[in-house]
Amino acid sequence: MGAERRAQAAGAEFRWAVRVYYEDTDATGLVYHSTYLEFMERARTEWLRHLGHGQHDLRSKTGIVFVVRDLEVRFMRPARIDQLLEVTVRITRCRGASMRFEQTVHDGETGPLCRALVEVACIDAVTLKPRRLPDFIKEGLKHVH
Amino acid sequence: MGAERRAQAAGAEFRWAVRVYYEDTDATGLVYHSTYLEFMERARTEWLRHLGHGQHDLRSKTGIVFVVRDLEVRFMRPARIDQLLEVTVRITRCRGASMRFEQTVHDGETGPLCRALVEVACIDAVTLKPRRLPDFIKEGLKHVH
Amino acid sequence: MGAERRAQAAGAEFRWAVRVYYEDTDATGLVYHSTYLEFMERARTEWLRHLGHGQHDLRSKTGIVFVVRDLEVRFMRPARIDQLLEVTVRITRCRGASMRFEQTVHDGETGPLCRALVEVACIDAVTLKPRRLPDFIKEGLKHVH
Amino acid sequence: MGAERRAQAAGAEFRWAVRVYYEDTDATGLVYHSTYLEFMERARTEWLRHLGHGQHDLRSKTGIVFVVRDLEVRFMRPARIDQLLEVTVRITRCRGASMRFEQTVHDGETGPLCRALVEVACIDAVTLKPRRLPDFIKEGLKHVH
Repeated sequence: MGAERRAQAAGAEFRWAVRVYYEDTDATGLVYHSTYLEFMERARTEWLRHLGHGQHDLRSKTGIVFVVRDLEVRFMRPARIDQLLEVTVRITRCRGASMRFEQTVHDGETGPLCRALVEVACIDAVTLKPRRLPDFIKEGLKHVH
Repeated sequence: MGAERRAQAAGAEFRWAVRVYYEDTDATGLVYHSTYLEFMERARTEWLRHLGHGQHDLRSKTGIVFVVRDLEVRFMRPARIDQLLEVTVRITRCRGASMRFEQTVHDGETGPLCRALVEVACIDAVTLKPRRLPDFIKEGLKHVH
Repeated sequence: MGAERRAQAAGAEFRWAVRVYYEDTDATGLVYHSTYLEFMERARTEWLRHLGHGQHDLRSKTGIVFVVRDLEVRFMRPARIDQLLEVTVRITRCRGASMRFEQTVHDGETGPLCRALVEVACIDAVTLKPRRLPDFIKEGLKHVH
Repeated sequence: MGAERRAQAAGAEFRWAVRVYYEDTDATGLVYHSTYLEFMERARTEWLRHLGHGQHDLRSKTGIVFVVRDLEVRFMRPARIDQLLEVTVRITRCRGASMRFEQTVHDGETGPLCRALVEVACIDAVTLKPRRLPDFIKEGLKHVH
């Protein structure tokens, strides 16, 4: 696989639209900072569904859940009520029991509102011990590494 | 306008789909009770947008905001993560500075998950005093009374 | 037990202080309406702890959880960021698998900010079927009926 | 001021207790990841109040609000409902229009549940442009640099 093709695969992005409601804002009039993390998790959940798997099914069939292990978020511009935002999901690494995502939130203007690196671990829903990532995630990413 | 036609108009319902994410659930494994109120507000906001008006525009152009004044909610069955719910909005009365909604949340099975009566007041965003409902709401509802 | 003493017992109120933070507010500058329900649940949870029982212990030892079945809330005045609110809990009925609470939220001024009737059901954490209320709740309330 | 005294001052930590309620958890049974950011903001707000200033007063008197600009969070162990957590706040840098905090969340066991670096900007509540930090923050920190 050539460098060009690999770059393209690695660049594959999933996008999910999110509307801002009153519940997402705070008294500054802007979206509350931790709400962006909820928007990003909605997008990761929809990316998973797009790969054919719901969080609930994965848990009931394989006993695994995903938990956020590490976060880096840079907030550049604020969002406001009624805006229609686009949240991107790009998986950049997956090995053993964890995967790493690059995510952004856009409002249609130039440049993202915020940008994040999110490391997600795969754990056993009962023991909370690390569990290997399901194969379908690794399959989907074999061209990304 | 005949009684039949009026009944039909009064029964007109707006519907809005809502997906359940982790953020909406609690440690019982079910959707947290106050989250249904957020789902219902999302649906009322989309109903307003469907009538041509965003909450932000209304506020910046006319200086009004809507606040919940009275709530009655009956919870019948629980929702879970990953479910796609349908929230209904039916305005049943509007006079002076307030309007009343009947709302339900459905999951596609027989009977709603929950059912609510919500009274919403129109107030001035700065003084918090009652303000007359905008005409477009009354226009849309003149056959409902 | 005389009528006077009984009335006094029935009027016994548990109080819990809650501080308003940014997370509790929305873009109107006021506390978001469903947040008051979270404040009320915090107070009911602390009332339970005051009776000697944590939600987690009850669930792990007896397999029960409490869920809200019915809500009536009247919002009279808004709360704002930084306010120190007092939430009251008064149990007014308990029978079989459910209990009813009267709750208010105060800010130190005359009259409550909001007032609620909350019916809470006791269910099995796994089957979600109704379960009899634990005796310690009934014991604590035998003078209330 | 000697190196020892300076180290002590720089190490000065503010601590704030936070109880975990149902609203803070999700269907994994654990505290939802973005909730820790709310706990951390509560602690920063109480640190500010401890220095003599409420968020609301600062805004109404000086026209400034604080917004999170950058976040790095590492989640090590999960918290559960009913736990009493301790959130720490240590300001490590403050210059111009921003300040940096180190924060942890503890549950009384060895080692923190999570650890964060939080950069907070001071902005104008209306224009959203950067504003110099109020002097009382710089005063309180002159021995920290």
